[in-house]
Amino acid sequence: MARRVGLWLVGAFGGVGTTITVGLATMARGLVDQTGLVTDLTDFRALPLPSPGDFVVGGHEIRRTSFEESAEEFRRESGVFEASWLSDCREELAAATARVRPGPTLGLDPAVRKLANWEAEAAPDSARHAIDRIKADLSAFAAKEKVDHLIVLNVASTEPPFPISEAHESLSAFNTALARKGEPIVPPSSFYALAAFEEGHTYLNFTPSLGASFPAAAELAASTGSLYGGKDGKTGETLMKTVLAPMFAARNLKVMSWVGHNIFGNRDGIVLDEPSNKSSKVRTKDKVITDILGYKPASVVSIEYVPGMGDWKTAWDHIHFTGFLGTKMALQFTWQGCDSLLAAPLGVDLARLADLEKQRGGKGLMTHLSCFFKGPEGDPENDFFKQYAKLEHYVATIGAGTK
Amino acid sequence: MARRVGLWLVGAFGGVGTTITVGLATMARGLVDQTGLVTDLTDFRALPLPSPGDFVVGGHEIRRTSFEESAEEFRRESGVFEASWLSDCREELAAATARVRPGPTLGLDPAVRKLANWEAEAAPDSARHAIDRIKADLSAFAAKEKVDHLIVLNVASTEPPFPISEAHESLSAFNTALARKGEPIVPPSSFYALAAFEEGHTYLNFTPSLGASFPAAAELAASTGSLYGGKDGKTGETLMKTVLAPMFAARNLKVMSWVGHNIFGNRDGIVLDEPSNKSSKVRTKDKVITDILGYKPASVVSIEYVPGMGDWKTAWDHIHFTGFLGTKMALQFTWQGCDSLLAAPLGVDLARLADLEKQRGGKGLMTHLSCFFKGPEGDPENDFFKQYAKLEHYVATIGAGTK
Amino acid sequence: MARRVGLWLVGAFGGVGTTITVGLATMARGLVDQTGLVTDLTDFRALPLPSPGDFVVGGHEIRRTSFEESAEEFRRESGVFEASWLSDCREELAAATARVRPGPTLGLDPAVRKLANWEAEAAPDSARHAIDRIKADLSAFAAKEKVDHLIVLNVASTEPPFPISEAHESLSAFNTALARKGEPIVPPSSFYALAAFEEGHTYLNFTPSLGASFPAAAELAASTGSLYGGKDGKTGETLMKTVLAPMFAARNLKVMSWVGHNIFGNRDGIVLDEPSNKSSKVRTKDKVITDILGYKPASVVSIEYVPGMGDWKTAWDHIHFTGFLGTKMALQFTWQGCDSLLAAPLGVDLARLADLEKQRGGKGLMTHLSCFFKGPEGDPENDFFKQYAKLEHYVATIGAGTK
Amino acid sequence: MARRVGLWLVGAFGGVGTTITVGLATMARGLVDQTGLVTDLTDFRALPLPSPGDFVVGGHEIRRTSFEESAEEFRRESGVFEASWLSDCREELAAATARVRPGPTLGLDPAVRKLANWEAEAAPDSARHAIDRIKADLSAFAAKEKVDHLIVLNVASTEPPFPISEAHESLSAFNTALARKGEPIVPPSSFYALAAFEEGHTYLNFTPSLGASFPAAAELAASTGSLYGGKDGKTGETLMKTVLAPMFAARNLKVMSWVGHNIFGNRDGIVLDEPSNKSSKVRTKDKVITDILGYKPASVVSIEYVPGMGDWKTAWDHIHFTGFLGTKMALQFTWQGCDSLLAAPLGVDLARLADLEKQRGGKGLMTHLSCFFKGPEGDPENDFFKQYAKLEHYVATIGAGTK
Repeated sequence: MARRVGLWLVGAFGGVGTTITVGLATMARGLVDQTGLVTDLTDFRALPLPSPGDFVVGGHEIRRTSFEESAEEFRRESGVFEASWLSDCREELAAATARVRPGPTLGLDPAVRKLANWEAEAAPDSARHAIDRIKADLSAFAAKEKVDHLIVLNVASTEPPFPISEAHESLSAFNTALARKGEPIVPPSSFYALAAFEEGHTYLNFTPSLGASFPAAAELAASTGSLYGGKDGKTGETLMKTVLAPMFAARNLKVMSWVGHNIFGNRDGIVLDEPSNKSSKVRTKDKVITDILGYKPASVVSIEYVPGMGDWKTAWDHIHFTGFLGTKMALQFTWQGCDSLLAAPLGVDLARLADLEKQRGGKGLMTHLSCFFKGPEGDPENDFFKQYAKLEHYVATIGAGTK
Repeated sequence: MARRVGLWLVGAFGGVGTTITVGLATMARGLVDQTGLVTDLTDFRALPLPSPGDFVVGGHEIRRTSFEESAEEFRRESGVFEASWLSDCREELAAATARVRPGPTLGLDPAVRKLANWEAEAAPDSARHAIDRIKADLSAFAAKEKVDHLIVLNVASTEPPFPISEAHESLSAFNTALARKGEPIVPPSSFYALAAFEEGHTYLNFTPSLGASFPAAAELAASTGSLYGGKDGKTGETLMKTVLAPMFAARNLKVMSWVGHNIFGNRDGIVLDEPSNKSSKVRTKDKVITDILGYKPASVVSIEYVPGMGDWKTAWDHIHFTGFLGTKMALQFTWQGCDSLLAAPLGVDLARLADLEKQRGGKGLMTHLSCFFKGPEGDPENDFFKQYAKLEHYVATIGAGTK
Repeated sequence: MARRVGLWLVGAFGGVGTTITVGLATMARGLVDQTGLVTDLTDFRALPLPSPGDFVVGGHEIRRTSFEESAEEFRRESGVFEASWLSDCREELAAATARVRPGPTLGLDPAVRKLANWEAEAAPDSARHAIDRIKADLSAFAAKEKVDHLIVLNVASTEPPFPISEAHESLSAFNTALARKGEPIVPPSSFYALAAFEEGHTYLNFTPSLGASFPAAAELAASTGSLYGGKDGKTGETLMKTVLAPMFAARNLKVMSWVGHNIFGNRDGIVLDEPSNKSSKVRTKDKVITDILGYKPASVVSIEYVPGMGDWKTAWDHIHFTGFLGTKMALQFTWQGCDSLLAAPLGVDLARLADLEKQRGGKGLMTHLSCFFKGPEGDPENDFFKQYAKLEHYVATIGAGTK
Repeated sequence: MARRVGLWLVGAFGGVGTTITVGLATMARGLVDQTGLVTDLTDFRALPLPSPGDFVVGGHEIRRTSFEESAEEFRRESGVFEASWLSDCREELAAATARVRPGPTLGLDPAVRKLANWEAEAAPDSARHAIDRIKADLSAFAAKEKVDHLIVLNVASTEPPFPISEAHESLSAFNTALARKGEPIVPPSSFYALAAFEEGHTYLNFTPSLGASFPAAAELAASTGSLYGGKDGKTGETLMKTVLAPMFAARNLKVMSWVGHNIFGNRDGIVLDEPSNKSSKVRTKDKVITDILGYKPASVVSIEYVPGMGDWKTAWDHIHFTGFLGTKMALQFTWQGCDSLLAAPLGVDLARLADLEKQRGGKGLMTHLSCFFKGPEGDPENDFFKQYAKLEHYVATIGAGTK
């Protein structure tokens, strides 16, 4: 019997969640090919990866809408998806919508809270309360859908940076703090990570939010053998940065400044227009260059919400560098990508590769997935091709092992 | 005593030759640092590479001018070099000028012939005659300057494609053909390669011209133990192509079209404005993408001479690709580089690395230098970072070996 | 009773013809607003211009298809038009398709001929024969649809440049030549112009093809009182050129070079990929800059067919100029426009303004329309804003006159 | 005898002041032509405008340096000016330096104050005190140099926005306030304007600072018959905006968003990096688009200081617009201009045209100069070509009058 993999989307009705859901349905029906999926490349084809049709989608949301509505809105505003796909897959979309549960609003930052209009019942009064409610939803889903493996994938809006302290160091003290009423000790993204870990599920963080990125969470994952990975999907401008910066380094061209301006108009943009939320994103986008070059050039990174652009993120980067004999030269690029359509296939790739690792009995942090992330945890490497070589090595090892 | 390396520039007074000469002099005097030299990177510093001051520059030319004049013209038109450097290094430049000899005009293509105004005596009447004259110049230089190693580096204008045939297959038949009067069996770039090989010198081809790229030349090099490598320095737009194409491949994004338009205004531009000369260049620029992607996207490559741009090559590339669910996206970049200032340090790198290999007793084709070339000989790899990894591996091996 | 204006599209099923037809239908139904129509601007609103619903569309074609098919293909490949519009306007599109007649294939250039697959009967054997057949179609349409005014609008593919000679000077000799069998004395675009003029209809040339641009045609138009105007709609890159060149002139900045590269992937692109057809287009695109600046900068203009781009024409222009104290600076722009969607509203504007002039009893060449054309006939002015001021002046005069 | 025009530069040693001084000297010596000067265009040549050699340069500064040092620093960092010009004009530069006086530091904003290191004596303790000191300097200069006309041109760093109130309405109350000790009622830019007006000199404001832009200043100018004009020179990106926005308007293309990012690295950039100073600049850059279009598109304007860029301002603008049938299209441009070299000739033009008006007996606000300004006073028009038509009309009128 085919493997059943539960894919639980945190922020399900957002652009990425919707595109993953539409993508899995259209691929399963053979309406589209697998372009954009790394796991569709030749090197990956012999692996026992789950097929699009092996996934069962569910999730949490704070906005009351549906995959059908989100997809139609997205199609109209950003000019993606064929109208016929949405009607062809109406049934799958409706079924997935029925599996989405209202997420707790406890601890939401102001920019995200403004979007929230769906709550099942009274808001939880502590982090522990919120986590337990999430666990109940996960368990119900897993049981009802008889999933072999449940993967929680965070594709929700970016939270503001959340400072961690001694209180996040060891699990026992941390657990006590979770039970406290009032302002929770971790942001919502971490509720989902902790809920997953407590049940032994897999957690993947596609955003720069805190999620599982603190010691107590790692300790918990270790104790239950959960798989996890993160963070912040590397989709467009940052992908370019981690491809081009190594080129300057390898040619001994000194980057004096790297300016990157990003404009886009989707809902994520509204949230990122809030300076504190934006700062989480800018941090990782900027850091990679310094890490790769080994010195810090002058840099500007902006992300601006521009209504009317829809999901089309346009990034203009201007790189000013010094070559031989002090000669100043410049490279500019303009990247025009549809953000959710770049992110969604990577989300599917991560889920497939996490399931592969699960099948192999893996546990803990998956550092071989660093090529998918702007801020790869457990891997200091940001050079895209060096990261990718690690994934290729992993695949080669698996291949050898399964023979 | 310090090692003395002869660097013989074919096309000495051109932009690249002049910049190499000015660069070696200014670096030797400590007026500038070594930015832009790959061999200045940390990984290379422990190697016994020749220093800038260890090189003695000479060369062949077909235009009657001098390094001093070329450098001043270049400074004025392209806004490079500090005026003070040229006066500070006047002595070195004059000495180098005195070591440049008139090159034979036999077999020059019409576009290049138009530039020629310097011939020592009657033009040679056969390829053999031209080669012998070149050999005499090389020998005189080597003897007078007491060089430990002589490297012939082709930085002359691009020749039209030169078809090779059965006559270029084996050395003995080929040698007979060389002696024939009339239209020579190989273009001028090959005269220099053959002259170098016959004397056991090293030959590096920084241009797309034929040079040493045919079987009889390889056979000759093998018989005399000459080192060689090529061809066509990878300086700007093509470097970008071989960096970006692997990114599209690794993300399974399908490149539908890759359009590249290059404009520049230096003397090389005048020659490349001639369609047959241009076609040599376009061929390698275009081929790398197909090689890396494994399929051929629609493509346009143009190189246009635009007076007033000087040595500043501006390339606009437009890459149109399909992502997940057939979504069409685009990347554009504009590269604004000073061509000779990008090329010259690579020429120096090649010479330093060739000398290192010579010191180690190496012979034949140096495939570990493929990251420097648009059309690397002996290495089918065009992915820049995979090429660079080969060089790093070579360096690591050397390092280990010398301990 | 509402005025009925016949709009006869030469090249009806092409991108522009299809967009005009879809546009008139959707505007008439109130599905879309009139954005993009110059005649929708405030200054034009009080004029007795025909409404979208006052137009009856017909035309000639050489490809056997339909507005419904063309529109659907266009929607799918270029991501324009809402699918719902095409179903809502199915009836209007079908009616318009029924009014399209096969055009004569006599004299078609090879690139266009390759596309031709629809001919009603035997090809005409002389220009006169072709013209008469066209006239018969026009008359039948005018009579059946009871049009008050018939406008022939050339939106067919660009023909190669067609040399004119003494034979095109006076009408009487020219008429004799028309009757000759064999290679016709004028290209097909002129057949339609002549047919229109002989019947006193209006002719507008939206392409760079010859059309009515020779003395004998003007003489004919004068004799029948026909209105006409041309040529070559100014939609994108050239519009930009005629807006920016005056800025450089007014600031006394010396343009050294103006390089323009255009890429696109529609059917027009296939035809323009043929060098002789392309040369017609390049000529007018290039000339405007010299006309405006008063001197000729170095220039490159390319138009390349790139499959997959659909109707999205992307133009990259690089303008290199000298400012104060000889300082070299640069402006680059990238224009990403959907060609047919830029052209179609101008076609509608021209038809509306030609009908206005007809209502006023106007005759002959309409030079007040020069702001719509790359190569405005009868107006040496290419500066866009000076051209536009002429149209504004015309409108102001009309307005004053009708009070 | 030749006319002598005193050109008093506020912020003399800055990039614009230095370039004006170098430019006048090199033009007077015939080392360079007048490219970049509007007043060098054919239409202006018959007018009795002062020649470069008719100007005597002086000014105020707060940094202790010299034209010679500034020019050399500028040459080295931004790659402008020939080294030979500076030695050829050493005498003129030294003479001009000797005519520069330390400006009062009273009221300097923090960003500018950080740069100040030159004060002749104790700082003035009231605006009146500062103004009187400036007047003394102006009078001494005018007397010593026997100037026929003294023009004060503000080319100093941009001040933060300065709110005006009732106190700035009428001259008598305002004069009382000027005498008050402590925080002055106007910023330094206004001290210079008031000093000029009280003596009947001409004042031109090339910056967005307050200067003469309040009612009491206008009343004062009227009472002494002073000429004046402003404000904020329209050099690069804003020039482009006021050229392109009218194009979108005239084609009825709806601009949804206009994003403009500016990066540069000169001293002005350091000051503009201070948010309050920047806001003055952003305000006028943004406003012009709304004024021209008649509606407010979404917009982003940023100005970022990027070390290493020197005076080279690079602006990337992304304009997203809707065309026919709601089709979304885009225009992007990159402007690479050397800011001081764009500004300086306009400063000279303004001085020449102000002197022309002085010769004609003109008084008060010169609205015919609006094409030179981002925020033209007394002229609500921002469309560049409509502004320029006013200047052309003025010139035509003068020409007719002088016949």
